[in-house]
Amino acid sequence: MIKGVLPMENTIISLEKGAVERWRKGDVWGWTEISDEDVTYFDTGTSKRIDGLEALKREYAKRVGKIRYDVKEFLDPKILVHGDAAVLFYRFFSTYLNPDGSIAGRIPWNCTEVYAKTDGKWKIVHTHWSFIKGEIKRD
Amino acid sequence: MIKGVLPMENTIISLEKGAVERWRKGDVWGWTEISDEDVTYFDTGTSKRIDGLEALKREYAKRVGKIRYDVKEFLDPKILVHGDAAVLFYRFFSTYLNPDGSIAGRIPWNCTEVYAKTDGKWKIVHTHWSFIKGEIKRD
Repeated sequence: MIKGVLPMENTIISLEKGAVERWRKGDVWGWTEISDEDVTYFDTGTSKRIDGLEALKREYAKRVGKIRYDVKEFLDPKILVHGDAAVLFYRFFSTYLNPDGSIAGRIPWNCTEVYAKTDGKWKIVHTHWSFIKGEIKRD
Repeated sequence: MIKGVLPMENTIISLEKGAVERWRKGDVWGWTEISDEDVTYFDTGTSKRIDGLEALKREYAKRVGKIRYDVKEFLDPKILVHGDAAVLFYRFFSTYLNPDGSIAGRIPWNCTEVYAKTDGKWKIVHTHWSFIKGEIKRD
C-alpha cells in the first residue's frame, strides 16, 4: 500500500472532482462515464446495492432534473494506492437549495471510491456513499 | 481485478465473519485485531473519519458493554481482488435487542471493507459502515 501524493493519485482526484463538478450542475452522467461496466454501488438512498453500469444508469436517469444542491470541497481526502487499484475516500457537505436558490440545509456525507485501471484507464469499480449520522443542518 | 471465489477470498470472508461473531457477543476487539496500524474508518455513528488503529481502539473502548444486537447473515457479499489488495462488501441487518432479550428493531446496513496483505497477513486498511436509508424496522 503506497501512501502520499503520486501523479496517479492526481489523475484519480481529478476524475472524481470532474464528476462532482458535473453533478452539482445537474449532469448525472459524469459518474457513469468514469464507472466500470461491472461497478457496484452502495448509496444511503437505495435499498439494495446497484450492480453494473446499466443498472447505475437507470438509477441516475431518475435523478435527472432533480439535483438541486451544491457540493462543498472534499474534506480530509485520502488515497491508498496498490498497483492498479486505488481507494479514495473523503467527507463532504452537500448544500440543498430551495427552488428560489436559498439554502434549505446541509447534509454531511462519507464517500469511498475504489478505482481500478483497466486497459490503461482508471475506472470506478465500487462506490459507497453514506450520510454521517443522518444529520441535517438547517441554516 | 479478479472476481470469483479464490482461497484468498475465503480467508478474508472468514476473518470478517470471525470479527462479526465476536462483535455480536459483545467483544469489540475482533475488529481491531484484524485492522492495520494505519486503518481509516467511516461509520455513520461517528462525525469524523477515524484514522489509525489507536484511535479506533479508543472509539471501540466506548462501546464495550453497550452492544446489544445480533448481526444477521451477510446479504449479497461480493469481493474484488487485486493482487495483495481486496475489497469486500455486503449488506446486513442488525437486530437490536431490549435488555430482556426481545427484539427492539432492525437496521439495514451497507459495509465496505478494504483489505491489504502486509507481511503475509491480511488486514483491514479501510472500513465504511453506513445505514441504508436510515430506516429502522420495528417488529
